[in-house]
Amino acid sequence: MKNNFEVYREQIEKHLKTALPEKSANFQVLYDAMRYSLYAGGKRIRPTLMQLSFEAVGGEGEIVPYLCAIEMIHTYSLIHDDLPAMDDDDLRRGKPTNHKVFGEATAILAGDALLNEAFTWMLQDALEHDDMRRVQAAHVLAEASGSEGMIGGQILDMQSENKVITLEELQNIHIHKTGALIAAAVKMGAILGGGSPEEVMALTFYGKYLGQVFQIVDDVLDKTSTDEELGKPVKSDVKNNKNTYLSFYDVETCYKIAEELTAKAIKCLERVQGDTQLLEELATSLVHRKN
Amino acid sequence: MKNNFEVYREQIEKHLKTALPEKSANFQVLYDAMRYSLYAGGKRIRPTLMQLSFEAVGGEGEIVPYLCAIEMIHTYSLIHDDLPAMDDDDLRRGKPTNHKVFGEATAILAGDALLNEAFTWMLQDALEHDDMRRVQAAHVLAEASGSEGMIGGQILDMQSENKVITLEELQNIHIHKTGALIAAAVKMGAILGGGSPEEVMALTFYGKYLGQVFQIVDDVLDKTSTDEELGKPVKSDVKNNKNTYLSFYDVETCYKIAEELTAKAIKCLERVQGDTQLLEELATSLVHRKN
Repeated sequence: MKNNFEVYREQIEKHLKTALPEKSANFQVLYDAMRYSLYAGGKRIRPTLMQLSFEAVGGEGEIVPYLCAIEMIHTYSLIHDDLPAMDDDDLRRGKPTNHKVFGEATAILAGDALLNEAFTWMLQDALEHDDMRRVQAAHVLAEASGSEGMIGGQILDMQSENKVITLEELQNIHIHKTGALIAAAVKMGAILGGGSPEEVMALTFYGKYLGQVFQIVDDVLDKTSTDEELGKPVKSDVKNNKNTYLSFYDVETCYKIAEELTAKAIKCLERVQGDTQLLEELATSLVHRKN
Repeated sequence: MKNNFEVYREQIEKHLKTALPEKSANFQVLYDAMRYSLYAGGKRIRPTLMQLSFEAVGGEGEIVPYLCAIEMIHTYSLIHDDLPAMDDDDLRRGKPTNHKVFGEATAILAGDALLNEAFTWMLQDALEHDDMRRVQAAHVLAEASGSEGMIGGQILDMQSENKVITLEELQNIHIHKTGALIAAAVKMGAILGGGSPEEVMALTFYGKYLGQVFQIVDDVLDKTSTDEELGKPVKSDVKNNKNTYLSFYDVETCYKIAEELTAKAIKCLERVQGDTQLLEELATSLVHRKN
């Protein structure tokens, strides 16, 4: 039997399929490259979180452009991260990376185009609904993706390679590199769903804790999982001499910390009026995920 | 004595200086790279056009975030265009290209961050003013920069290298690669200034003609100018075996076509209620520019 999150994931896959044209008179190669990475699977954790948060505050109707936009932005960041000048990765989600298939130049442009498309679609939707709340959600995403968010984290991450850093510095990288977008997902859902300021804040904190859990478990899985299970080469952190939680703690302690943070995340949900059962389940499942 | 456009350009330079922080606790390198290219000079033709169009339809107040956003997006596209995987250029506006100074990885991220920053700032401004017209302007920019606009043009340009293409195909590249953003600049100014639908349309067409003129003159200058005058290596089109207007026409005919298109652009201005004197002057000056 499918669990709840598989149902959400399938729904999101269906939305994503409508996000980019299959045929284009002018730009077939570009769309092929965009589609290749956007449809390469993945957990779709960010749009799932957004949808659950939206429902928890009593949101009604559909928020498809925002679900797709955050996944487009996540995907663009992976395409650029995998480039030879960056992490130089050959494999992503079990498939050759974008530049391996389409060449570097097209991969750079496909990433740029996904970022642009995310904003184009969100703003078009906000205009059609004449709804400032939707503009606010787009703004949250822009901020979380930019220099004070995800991109800032990528820079910090780059600068820390082959260096010994403190635990605080490591957490600072994570808060920006992966945490910002995960927290943004939850916050956007709460805003789009019309949550109260208190609910928006509580859910944002929930998202921040979850972002930390996500990263800790990522670090652990890179050590304990297999290539097949993870869909990308494991042990890459050690190979690239990367700072991770395992530079500071053993696996057992990492899981203990992750569980404590998950408990804090779940505690935040008390301040949300609606049904937060699924957000609680998702938080718990993130600690115990296998890929 | 300064001409009108130098006054506008200086004003825009001043706005741009406020666009990015000089000091950053976390992300100094990133902001240094962003500032390096954003403040490398250039004609600032896009924000100048936006401001003139805004004034022509009777716009009041300031539109700083939008002036800066279009220049940020133009700058990001240049940074990515210059990368080794793309045009592999060492010199831009008389200075070493971004990746030559900061390395490829930082250059990619600085480009990404400029694109994000453009949207963050515009949307923040739209929210502060609670103004859907501003959202509409941001949407115009997103669309013009994306896969159906500038990025689409970059893909077409790449695909056409070392190939013989038709004049129609060349024009299709230009309409997207450079024309989309120039037309967007004028259109955004008209929207932000509260122009009537007829004025917005007339000014958009003015912008489209101007984009073509801009590109034709660019092609000619690459042949007839010097490195010093142009601030970048001339004769690069021949060296890179690029298709340009000079593959189809001699210099004299190119100028004749440019003048015809300029006349058409100026004709569009008749449908604008306000004072379009400066827009007319700018159009004329674009044909005769030396860099």
